[in-house]
Amino acid sequence: MSINIYDDMNKLESTLRKTDEYLAVKSAMEDVKSDEEARVLFESFREIQMNLQQKQMAGEEIAGEELEHAQKTAQLAQENPKIMTMLTAEMKLSELIEEVNRVVLKPVQDLYESFN
Amino acid sequence: MSINIYDDMNKLESTLRKTDEYLAVKSAMEDVKSDEEARVLFESFREIQMNLQQKQMAGEEIAGEELEHAQKTAQLAQENPKIMTMLTAEMKLSELIEEVNRVVLKPVQDLYESFN
Ligand SMILES: [Ca+2]
Ligand SMILES: [Ca+2]
Repeated sequence: MSINIYDDMNKLESTLRKTDEYLAVKSAMEDVKSDEEARVLFESFREIQMNLQQKQMAGEEIAGEELEHAQKTAQLAQENPKIMTMLTAEMKLSELIEEVNRVVLKPVQDLYESFN
Repeated sequence: MSINIYDDMNKLESTLRKTDEYLAVKSAMEDVKSDEEARVLFESFREIQMNLQQKQMAGEEIAGEELEHAQKTAQLAQENPKIMTMLTAEMKLSELIEEVNRVVLKPVQDLYESFN
Protein backbone atom coordinates (compact mmCIF):
# COMPACT_ATOMS: atom_id res chain seq x y z
CA MET A 1 0.00 0.00 0.00
CA SER A 2 1.35 3.36 -0.97
CA ILE A 3 0.85 6.41 1.22
CA ASN A 4 -1.05 9.29 -0.42
CA ILE A 5 1.14 12.39 -0.30
CA TYR A 6 -1.12 14.28 -2.72
CA ASP A 7 -3.77 14.82 -0.05
CA ASP A 8 -1.16 16.48 2.19
CA MET A 9 0.20 18.57 -0.68
CA ASN A 10 -3.27 19.80 -1.61
CA LYS A 11 -4.12 20.50 2.02
CA LEU A 12 -0.97 22.62 2.37
CA GLU A 13 -1.74 24.42 -0.90
CA SER A 14 -5.24 25.23 0.30
CA THR A 15 -4.02 26.38 3.74
CA LEU A 16 -1.38 28.60 2.14
CA ARG A 17 -4.16 30.50 0.37
CA LYS A 18 -5.74 31.25 3.77
CA THR A 19 -2.62 32.49 5.58
CA ASP A 20 -2.34 36.11 6.71
CA GLU A 21 0.77 36.39 4.53
CA TYR A 22 -1.06 35.31 1.38
CA LEU A 23 -4.19 37.35 2.05
CA ALA A 24 -2.07 40.43 2.77
CA VAL A 25 -0.40 40.23 -0.65
CA LYS A 26 -3.73 39.65 -2.37
CA SER A 27 -5.34 42.62 -0.67
CA ALA A 28 -2.30 44.89 -1.24
CA MET A 29 -2.30 43.95 -4.94
CA GLU A 30 -5.98 44.90 -5.19
CA ASP A 31 -5.23 48.25 -3.54
CA VAL A 32 -2.47 48.95 -6.06
CA LYS A 33 -4.59 47.83 -9.01
CA SER A 34 -7.55 50.01 -8.04
CA ASP A 35 -5.43 53.15 -7.56
CA GLU A 36 -4.64 54.61 -11.00
CA GLU A 37 -1.52 56.46 -9.78
CA ALA A 38 -0.08 53.46 -7.93
CA ARG A 39 -0.93 51.06 -10.74
CA VAL A 40 0.72 53.10 -13.50
CA LEU A 41 3.78 53.77 -11.34
CA PHE A 42 4.15 50.13 -10.40
CA GLU A 43 3.72 48.95 -13.99
CA SER A 44 6.49 51.24 -15.25
CA PHE A 45 8.71 50.25 -12.30
CA ARG A 46 8.21 46.57 -13.16
CA GLU A 47 8.74 47.09 -16.89
CA ILE A 48 11.99 49.01 -16.31
CA GLN A 49 13.26 46.32 -13.90
CA MET A 50 12.52 43.60 -16.44
CA ASN A 51 14.25 45.51 -19.24
CA LEU A 52 17.34 46.06 -17.08
CA GLN A 53 17.45 42.38 -16.09
CA GLN A 54 17.19 41.25 -19.71
CA LYS A 55 19.98 43.58 -20.74
CA GLN A 56 22.18 42.39 -17.87
CA MET A 57 21.58 38.75 -18.79
CA ALA A 58 22.35 39.48 -22.44
CA GLY A 59 25.54 41.29 -21.36
CA GLU A 60 24.33 44.53 -22.96
CA GLU A 61 25.58 47.88 -21.75
CA ILE A 62 23.18 50.00 -19.67
CA ALA A 63 23.44 53.72 -20.40
CA GLY A 64 23.94 56.07 -17.44
CA GLU A 65 20.75 57.95 -18.35
CA GLU A 66 18.75 54.72 -18.40
CA LEU A 67 20.06 53.70 -14.99
CA GLU A 68 19.22 57.14 -13.61
CA HIS A 69 15.65 56.87 -14.95
CA ALA A 70 15.34 53.38 -13.42
CA GLN A 71 16.54 54.61 -10.03
CA LYS A 72 14.13 57.55 -10.11
CA THR A 73 11.19 55.28 -10.94
CA ALA A 74 12.21 52.82 -8.20
CA GLN A 75 12.39 55.68 -5.70
CA LEU A 76 8.96 57.01 -6.71
CA ALA A 77 7.49 53.50 -6.46
CA GLN A 78 8.94 53.01 -2.99
CA GLU A 79 7.56 56.35 -1.86
CA ASN A 80 4.04 55.25 -2.84
CA PRO A 81 2.45 53.77 0.33
CA LYS A 82 0.27 51.28 -1.57
CA ILE A 83 3.19 49.93 -3.57
CA MET A 84 5.39 49.84 -0.47
CA THR A 85 2.72 47.88 1.44
CA MET A 86 2.53 45.40 -1.43
CA LEU A 87 6.32 44.94 -1.69
CA THR A 88 6.60 44.42 2.08
CA ALA A 89 3.76 41.88 2.03
CA GLU A 90 5.46 40.05 -0.84
CA MET A 91 8.68 39.78 1.15
CA LYS A 92 6.84 38.23 4.10
CA LEU A 93 5.09 35.74 1.81
CA SER A 94 8.47 34.85 0.26
CA GLU A 95 9.83 34.07 3.70
CA LEU A 96 6.89 31.75 4.37
CA ILE A 97 7.43 29.96 1.03
CA GLU A 98 11.13 29.56 1.84
CA GLU A 99 10.17 28.07 5.20
CA VAL A 100 7.86 25.59 3.41
CA ASN A 101 10.69 24.63 1.05
CA ARG A 102 13.09 24.18 3.95
CA VAL A 103 10.72 21.85 5.81
CA VAL A 104 9.80 19.85 2.71
CA LEU A 105 13.46 19.42 1.68
CA LYS A 106 14.54 18.35 5.18
CA PRO A 107 13.81 14.62 4.64
CA VAL A 108 15.92 14.60 1.46
CA GLN A 109 18.72 16.47 3.20
CA ASP A 110 18.62 13.90 6.03
CA LEU A 111 19.00 11.07 3.49
CA TYR A 112 22.14 12.60 1.99
CA GLU A 113 23.64 13.38 5.36
CA SER A 114 23.08 9.80 6.48
CA PHE A 115 24.89 8.55 3.36
CA ASN A 116 28.18 10.16 4.36
CA MET B 1 -7.34 34.26 14.16
CA SER B 2 -4.46 33.10 12.04
CA ILE B 3 -4.53 29.75 10.26
CA ASN B 4 -1.78 27.33 11.28
CA ILE B 5 0.19 26.33 8.19
CA TYR B 6 2.97 24.72 10.21
CA ASP B 7 0.79 21.69 11.04
CA ASP B 8 0.23 21.08 7.32
CA MET B 9 3.92 21.57 6.52
CA ASN B 10 4.96 19.11 9.20
CA LYS B 11 2.31 16.61 8.13
CA LEU B 12 3.61 16.77 4.54
CA GLU B 13 7.20 16.42 5.75
CA SER B 14 6.29 13.34 7.76
CA THR B 15 4.28 11.79 4.90
CA LEU B 16 7.15 12.39 2.47
CA ARG B 17 9.37 10.20 4.65
CA LYS B 18 6.86 7.35 4.23
CA THR B 19 6.41 7.51 0.44
CA ASP B 20 7.59 4.64 -1.77
CA GLU B 21 9.88 7.12 -3.53
CA TYR B 22 11.63 8.15 -0.30
CA LEU B 23 11.88 4.63 1.10
CA ALA B 24 13.28 3.35 -2.21
CA VAL B 25 16.16 5.88 -2.09
CA LYS B 26 16.84 5.08 1.56
CA SER B 27 16.95 1.34 0.93
CA ALA B 28 19.04 1.71 -2.25
CA MET B 29 21.53 3.90 -0.35
CA GLU B 30 21.85 1.24 2.32
CA ASP B 31 22.50 -1.40 -0.36
CA VAL B 32 25.27 0.73 -1.87
CA LYS B 33 26.80 1.52 1.52
CA SER B 34 26.90 -2.12 2.62
CA ASP B 35 28.54 -3.32 -0.63
CA GLU B 36 32.28 -2.50 -0.50
CA GLU B 37 32.68 -2.50 -4.29
CA ALA B 38 29.63 -0.33 -4.95
CA ARG B 39 30.47 2.04 -2.10
CA VAL B 40 34.08 2.68 -3.16
CA LEU B 41 33.05 3.08 -6.80
CA PHE B 42 30.25 5.50 -5.95
CA GLU B 43 32.46 7.54 -3.64
CA SER B 44 35.11 8.03 -6.32
CA PHE B 45 32.41 8.80 -8.90
CA ARG B 46 30.97 11.47 -6.61
CA GLU B 47 34.38 12.95 -5.71
CA ILE B 48 35.37 13.20 -9.38
CA GLN B 49 32.04 14.85 -10.27
CA MET B 50 32.47 17.40 -7.48
CA ASN B 51 36.05 18.20 -8.53
CA LEU B 52 34.98 18.70 -12.14
CA GLN B 53 32.10 20.96 -11.09
CA GLN B 54 34.37 23.08 -8.89
CA LYS B 55 36.89 23.47 -11.71
CA GLN B 56 34.15 24.40 -14.17
CA MET B 57 32.75 27.02 -11.78
CA ALA B 58 36.24 28.44 -11.18
CA GLY B 59 36.78 28.54 -14.96
CA GLU B 60 39.78 26.20 -14.68
CA GLU B 61 40.83 24.05 -17.62
CA ILE B 62 40.04 20.34 -17.45
CA ALA B 63 42.76 18.13 -18.92
CA GLY B 64 41.74 15.54 -21.54
CA GLU B 65 43.16 12.75 -19.36
CA GLU B 66 41.11 13.90 -16.37
CA LEU B 67 37.92 14.01 -18.42
CA GLU B 68 38.64 10.53 -19.75
CA HIS B 69 39.16 9.20 -16.21
CA ALA B 70 35.89 10.86 -15.12
CA GLN B 71 33.96 9.31 -18.00
CA LYS B 72 35.41 5.86 -17.27
CA THR B 73 34.44 6.12 -13.58
CA ALA B 74 30.93 7.32 -14.52
CA GLN B 75 30.53 4.38 -16.87
CA LEU B 76 31.71 1.87 -14.25
CA ALA B 77 29.34 3.40 -11.68
CA GLN B 78 26.40 3.17 -14.07
CA GLU B 79 27.20 -0.46 -14.82
CA ASN B 80 26.96 -1.31 -11.13
CA PRO B 81 23.35 -2.47 -10.49
CA LYS B 82 23.22 -1.19 -6.90
CA ILE B 83 24.45 2.28 -7.88
CA MET B 84 22.11 2.33 -10.90
CA THR B 85 19.13 1.39 -8.68
CA MET B 86 20.06 4.21 -6.31
CA LEU B 87 20.44 6.82 -9.08
CA THR B 88 17.11 5.80 -10.63
CA ALA B 89 15.38 5.98 -7.24
CA GLU B 90 16.89 9.43 -6.68
CA MET B 91 15.48 10.65 -9.98
CA LYS B 92 11.98 9.47 -9.05
CA LEU B 93 12.23 11.17 -5.66
CA SER B 94 13.37 14.39 -7.39
CA GLU B 95 10.27 14.28 -9.57
CA LEU B 96 8.08 13.98 -6.47
CA ILE B 97 9.84 16.93 -4.82
CA GLU B 98 9.38 19.00 -7.98
CA GLU B 99 5.68 18.10 -7.93
CA VAL B 100 5.46 19.29 -4.30
CA ASN B 101 7.15 22.56 -5.25
CA ARG B 102 4.80 23.04 -8.19
CA VAL B 103 1.70 22.55 -6.05
CA VAL B 104 2.98 24.76 -3.22
CA LEU B 105 3.97 27.56 -5.60
CA LYS B 106 0.64 27.45 -7.46
CA PRO B 107 -1.13 29.91 -5.09
CA VAL B 108 1.69 32.45 -5.52
CA GLN B 109 1.66 31.98 -9.29
CA ASP B 110 -2.12 32.57 -9.27
CA LEU B 111 -1.61 35.85 -7.39
CA TYR B 112 0.83 37.17 -9.98
CA GLU B 113 -1.31 36.05 -12.88
CA SER B 114 -4.31 37.81 -11.40
CA PHE B 115 -2.30 41.02 -11.12
CA ASN B 116 -1.80 41.30 -14.86
CA1 LIG C 1 -2.76 57.72 -4.81
CA1 LIG D 1 29.25 -6.16 -5.80
